[in-house]
Amino acid sequence: MDMLLKCDANYASLTPITFLKRASAFYSDRTSLIYEGTRFTWRQTYERCCRLASSLHRLNISKNDVVSVLAPNVPALYEMHFAVPMAGAILNTINTRLDANNIALILRHSEAKILFVDYKYIQEAKDALRLLVAESFPLPLIVNIDDIDSPTGVRFGNFEYEQLIHNGDVKFTPREVHDEWDSIALNYTSGTTSAPKGVVYSHRAAFLSTLSLVMGWEMGNAPVYLWTLPMFHCNGWTFTWGIAARGGTNVCMRNTTAFDIFRNINLHHVTHMCCAPIVFRIILEANGGDRRQVASPVNVLTGGAPPPAPLLEKMEALGFHITHAYGLTEATGPALVCEWQEKWNILPTDEQAKLKARQGISILTLADVDVKNLDTMESVPHDGHTTGEIVLRGSSLMKGYFKDPAATAAAFKNGWFLTGDIGVIYPDGYLEIKDRSKDVIISGGENISSVEVETVLYRHPQVAEAAVVAMPHPLWGESPCAFVAVHGDADTVSEAEIIAFCRKNLSHYMVPKKVVFVAELPKANGKIQKFKLREQAKYFNVTEKRVAQISRNKSGRQDSSRRLDYGEHVLAMSRL
Amino acid sequence: MDMLLKCDANYASLTPITFLKRASAFYSDRTSLIYEGTRFTWRQTYERCCRLASSLHRLNISKNDVVSVLAPNVPALYEMHFAVPMAGAILNTINTRLDANNIALILRHSEAKILFVDYKYIQEAKDALRLLVAESFPLPLIVNIDDIDSPTGVRFGNFEYEQLIHNGDVKFTPREVHDEWDSIALNYTSGTTSAPKGVVYSHRAAFLSTLSLVMGWEMGNAPVYLWTLPMFHCNGWTFTWGIAARGGTNVCMRNTTAFDIFRNINLHHVTHMCCAPIVFRIILEANGGDRRQVASPVNVLTGGAPPPAPLLEKMEALGFHITHAYGLTEATGPALVCEWQEKWNILPTDEQAKLKARQGISILTLADVDVKNLDTMESVPHDGHTTGEIVLRGSSLMKGYFKDPAATAAAFKNGWFLTGDIGVIYPDGYLEIKDRSKDVIISGGENISSVEVETVLYRHPQVAEAAVVAMPHPLWGESPCAFVAVHGDADTVSEAEIIAFCRKNLSHYMVPKKVVFVAELPKANGKIQKFKLREQAKYFNVTEKRVAQISRNKSGRQDSSRRLDYGEHVLAMSRL
Repeated sequence: MDMLLKCDANYASLTPITFLKRASAFYSDRTSLIYEGTRFTWRQTYERCCRLASSLHRLNISKNDVVSVLAPNVPALYEMHFAVPMAGAILNTINTRLDANNIALILRHSEAKILFVDYKYIQEAKDALRLLVAESFPLPLIVNIDDIDSPTGVRFGNFEYEQLIHNGDVKFTPREVHDEWDSIALNYTSGTTSAPKGVVYSHRAAFLSTLSLVMGWEMGNAPVYLWTLPMFHCNGWTFTWGIAARGGTNVCMRNTTAFDIFRNINLHHVTHMCCAPIVFRIILEANGGDRRQVASPVNVLTGGAPPPAPLLEKMEALGFHITHAYGLTEATGPALVCEWQEKWNILPTDEQAKLKARQGISILTLADVDVKNLDTMESVPHDGHTTGEIVLRGSSLMKGYFKDPAATAAAFKNGWFLTGDIGVIYPDGYLEIKDRSKDVIISGGENISSVEVETVLYRHPQVAEAAVVAMPHPLWGESPCAFVAVHGDADTVSEAEIIAFCRKNLSHYMVPKKVVFVAELPKANGKIQKFKLREQAKYFNVTEKRVAQISRNKSGRQDSSRRLDYGEHVLAMSRL
Repeated sequence: MDMLLKCDANYASLTPITFLKRASAFYSDRTSLIYEGTRFTWRQTYERCCRLASSLHRLNISKNDVVSVLAPNVPALYEMHFAVPMAGAILNTINTRLDANNIALILRHSEAKILFVDYKYIQEAKDALRLLVAESFPLPLIVNIDDIDSPTGVRFGNFEYEQLIHNGDVKFTPREVHDEWDSIALNYTSGTTSAPKGVVYSHRAAFLSTLSLVMGWEMGNAPVYLWTLPMFHCNGWTFTWGIAARGGTNVCMRNTTAFDIFRNINLHHVTHMCCAPIVFRIILEANGGDRRQVASPVNVLTGGAPPPAPLLEKMEALGFHITHAYGLTEATGPALVCEWQEKWNILPTDEQAKLKARQGISILTLADVDVKNLDTMESVPHDGHTTGEIVLRGSSLMKGYFKDPAATAAAFKNGWFLTGDIGVIYPDGYLEIKDRSKDVIISGGENISSVEVETVLYRHPQVAEAAVVAMPHPLWGESPCAFVAVHGDADTVSEAEIIAFCRKNLSHYMVPKKVVFVAELPKANGKIQKFKLREQAKYFNVTEKRVAQISRNKSGRQDSSRRLDYGEHVLAMSRL
């Protein structure tokens, strides 16, 4: 048997680029992408990607070069998911909610050769580049992404996106992927520590994860997919590539507003969308003019946990069918999907909601998933009760963290990837998360590192001690809440002052919505006991103006007529 | 990027064994298999496979050993698809329609260490072993597979199947697949030529092909799958593994009769089945007592060519929804699926049938498919007219032919696998087969597709079976010669009438110059053996008027109340 060798005919690198070539061959005249007045077919999308790849090649982009992009869900960002690897390079999609500091940090760390910038983010890009200039760091080439809404006269780039397409060679032959272990994407997590980590995906992982998610979600042929999920999140949970695999239609959106969501759904007969649960909120809270019944059911894959019964019911009543998934950037998107079992249909609604709230079962291309006691590496019993850390292994996981061997080594242990999430396994094999790596605050689907916020707080001249934990937020799920002990007299500094200081030094979504002044932070062995603060903060809410004061008086609990909103709970759990 | 290395956590061999472990973890109490009174859950199936693998291990089966099996679609055959590779060995499923000579040939060539034999095939097995004994060839161990219907006292094996299960260790750890290129299965093609070739599959190919077919057929979760397709055909077109991947239920059947098909469909709410088109005939010709309306629609994947309009309509009317696929043993089963496009729904039925009759588009894990002129390796234009050879490449293809480097080298050329089938590509990218390369008739420099002529012949109301081959022609080099079996009394139709019918429906150069009436066409495994007809035809010449008559007298069977139908013709075309 062993004399049968691999050859070009029977061994081809697994790469999602195949999906686009195939779509161009077999779905050539089918609509690949719609963005307001713009429409392309799969043949056109393939040709545009060939042209762009050819232009990148002429700009000396070659294997393992990083190409960064800062853009909302516009056609250019979609096309780059193929064109950049077709040029042999690695795609780095930057979270558009980051501030100039973080953008600069990513450009520096990734050594991006080119930065594509949508017109809306020119200011952030300029500010980031200015920071690089200040450090004499070599600047990337800049390519402007415009559309018909772009204000005139704001160009600052070296090239225009459409010009690269136009000048490219439509007959360009995509670079062969000689090794499926080669890198296709670099995605920075905000992570739990202050330094964002660059998660690297192989072509193999991207290919396998794409197939798994299409299967896990039971997505059929020719879906119409609405881009409510930012493509910069794990490459749109791999559906950037998956829609090509299924010969579907991408409906792009610049802004995720209720008006645009409902309009696009009914106009284009959307069948599928992914989103963080914050989008449920946008949908459910739409005003009368924006909100409408959807004409045919829309399948929604949502990242994060517990979509509780009332939320599910409201969404289902509007025509949305929700599937719950769990994942992380390191797992190339969702790693578990809460696959529905038909026998559950007869259960009462709240029972169903409980079952749906679980994180579920592994996707098909993971080799294994387990919940383990990390000290012994023993699996927990399947009792729905004993907790351990959720661990994963398989070919759809990341290669590792870019230029960070220590973090990479720490993430992989004894043949497993450690998620940092604490969970249980039920007797039926389904997993549920019980707690999460402690310090992350998830606000509007974005991870906020408490350490990063604390670092800024500590820079304030009067802050002696600071700890940041999550508190519930009616819209964003969680918000950062800062506990601060000040030097000297506490009355000399106000909450408003601290918040203003943070706004100057942090991306806005990271700014604490509440600052609680305390005489001293609770500690054990010199370490701050954040769980005690979290315990306190979970009864706070942003409208309750007096909480800080009360807290200082050590009264601890407030009445809490306020219910922890279900929407937020979902958000809080979201890792995606 | 290159410093990020593979490790056990992020690089696992792709193998279908994963699907069973996963099914056992997440669908543990769901029914995995039903066979008359027998029912197992996925946990039970996994445990039984662990036990069997452990017993194989104790019998000194180790990596790269071949384990053969001669059985119909019973639970043992299903379980062996996992248990044999879990023991590190290679599964060789033998076509139960083979005679002792061919079985002996396979046992000798594969050097099988163990042969599992269902009670029904003991005689064939004994005869085959006798042949090996005569050659002093070392005999494999024999394991009997019995069930409640087994007659008593026919044991001849060394072991009983259930005894191996019973004695096996349920805690056996399946052998790690260290290299996904390792072999999982060895399938002998019957081919239309005399020497069967041993096609070897890798774990990687089996894994990828399984996912592709589940996706290509849009098979959702928890299907109820009826085993009308023999598992010995390309491992049941990989659905042996695929049903585990989808957490479905296997409904096993010993005999593919109309009664059992309808009974099982309605009893177990079957959702999916695969079959060669001969099974359509069994279904459509069922007598009143056996035939019934199916309670809910059954998706049927059929391998082979042209399911003509009336057949499709009749099957759809009964509640079967047919999808057409094309493949070969060398491609791990179907390589093309005729994916339906919604826009075709508005077309007239015959137009739809024409579209559905095409072989379609490549599955997702093929890297590429094309139709090429093999002399120049140029692709044919997408005009639906220019013919070339269908070529494939990708990781779901076979490793090669076992112990046959010459055949392997001939099959792979210039980075492609040559299917030996002649086809065209339509402007929409869909492929259609026009003929086997060796069946093309070259007359006066024109290529004549034997399939095209046969298709016309089948439209004649009295033609039950037809095969067209080349015969020598003094002027044109070759001419088409038709072999025909008719419904009912053969005397009611003349050669002149058939030729006249063809002249009305074909270009004149394609019209058979001779029609030979036979009671039945020679077949092996349901495939027409054209080489035998060609052998006959090469002694014909256009002036010999009496050949038809002679041929009929030779063939003996005149009765022919027996219908031989186009269903079998389709079968004849089937490469699966």
